[in-house]
Amino acid sequence: MIKMRNIKLTIEYDGKDFNGWQKQPNRLNIQGEIERAILEVTGKEVNLIASGRTDAGVHALGQVANFKIDSNFPIEKMAIALNSKLKHSIRIQKAEEVEEDFHARYHCKRKTYRYVIDNSEQGSAIYRGLEYHVAQKLDVKGMQEAIDYFVGEHNFSAFKSSGTSSKSSVRTIYEARILEKEGERIWIELTGNGFLYNMVRIIAGTILEVGLGKRKPQEIPEIIQSKKRENAGKTLPAQGLFLVKVEYEKCEKSFAKTLAK
Amino acid sequence: MIKMRNIKLTIEYDGKDFNGWQKQPNRLNIQGEIERAILEVTGKEVNLIASGRTDAGVHALGQVANFKIDSNFPIEKMAIALNSKLKHSIRIQKAEEVEEDFHARYHCKRKTYRYVIDNSEQGSAIYRGLEYHVAQKLDVKGMQEAIDYFVGEHNFSAFKSSGTSSKSSVRTIYEARILEKEGERIWIELTGNGFLYNMVRIIAGTILEVGLGKRKPQEIPEIIQSKKRENAGKTLPAQGLFLVKVEYEKCEKSFAKTLAK
Repeated sequence: MIKMRNIKLTIEYDGKDFNGWQKQPNRLNIQGEIERAILEVTGKEVNLIASGRTDAGVHALGQVANFKIDSNFPIEKMAIALNSKLKHSIRIQKAEEVEEDFHARYHCKRKTYRYVIDNSEQGSAIYRGLEYHVAQKLDVKGMQEAIDYFVGEHNFSAFKSSGTSSKSSVRTIYEARILEKEGERIWIELTGNGFLYNMVRIIAGTILEVGLGKRKPQEIPEIIQSKKRENAGKTLPAQGLFLVKVEYEKCEKSFAKTLAK
Repeated sequence: MIKMRNIKLTIEYDGKDFNGWQKQPNRLNIQGEIERAILEVTGKEVNLIASGRTDAGVHALGQVANFKIDSNFPIEKMAIALNSKLKHSIRIQKAEEVEEDFHARYHCKRKTYRYVIDNSEQGSAIYRGLEYHVAQKLDVKGMQEAIDYFVGEHNFSAFKSSGTSSKSSVRTIYEARILEKEGERIWIELTGNGFLYNMVRIIAGTILEVGLGKRKPQEIPEIIQSKKRENAGKTLPAQGLFLVKVEYEKCEKSFAKTLAK
């Protein structure tokens, strides 16, 4: 009998080609495509668990997912084998064998999201599907001041879309920053222990309104405290959002401790 | 009577959406699309002259073109008006009124091209149409050594595809460099007074062979001197090639001198 192995994948994808991560009938989705590739390569049906779903149109540079499989397929050949069965708009960047208890979703983690605004006058022809264009010159200093208020543990009810089933709206933001890039791009980056439905896109929309001079940075704490969605800014479109990375380092340590007991 | 005006456009485009710059019937091309937009905006048929044609699939960050027009359409609104009539894979970045003798093609100029190689193990999902993927780790130092031999005035017959009508194959390369970018990208950049048909893609293909260890940097001078296409490397695919910018500064000075006499 072949031992059950636990495989961790690090995945890049171009969200505009898919109706989001989650498997659903008759609509192209990332989970379904990768599960199909795994079946073609190993002959095994698996259940692929992501760190979290991404919506239709959202991109990933480093989504993480895992699956259990009873197959001896060599791990060092798995990424290239899966890629050979996948559209080029999904690339498995890494495949690793991990401890049997590793769980991409429930293991505690740090996730980093980036929202990309193209602040050039006319927008970009080449990167058009990978950013959100705003022609009016933004107040980047004000945006930086605004984003600093998000750091820490807060109830983010004002920054989630309805229709979510999360029990708690309390999340912790570890780091938040605005980066100015060549080509007049502005990156809004957030690292936290988890994000509510549409949370990054609503935070980005609120910070954008600060950049446009429609709100003051000092209004952010009140908006958070109000816990009311209507006090925050608009949800920006999916095309500018990237799941940059998911880090499990700390968790694996605490897991190792549990094992050692 | 309206005075004839000379308009200079700076244009960005995503080459994968077009069959190249040049106007041709029944095939989507950049020149034809922009001439159509100018007609829709101003009511005038014009002849748009580029600094040079780009082939099917080649991208531009800063192509330059000009056209003569007898229209009072306000220049400060022209870029945004043209963009409203164009697919988003073409963006007019700038429209300026220039001296009547400015000619995007015949005016002497410096052109900069970039060839982008993705040297990551699995390739990129997100930037897949904007680079050429090479999984084998490249010898970047060797590539830098190789590219230095191209600087200067040379007969580049070994680095042009047949079927070109240029009278002379002598061109001057002012600058040549290899840049390593985050995300394991390698940029091959060349600035010169002009480039023969497929010249950048053949130079990039030859330098890539140095990076792969198939050739030595020291072979480059012999290849140039041989003037034989079969001694150079392969023509790399169009998708990795960008026309970065076209500079006319020096020319405008010499033109100004001519006028002053």
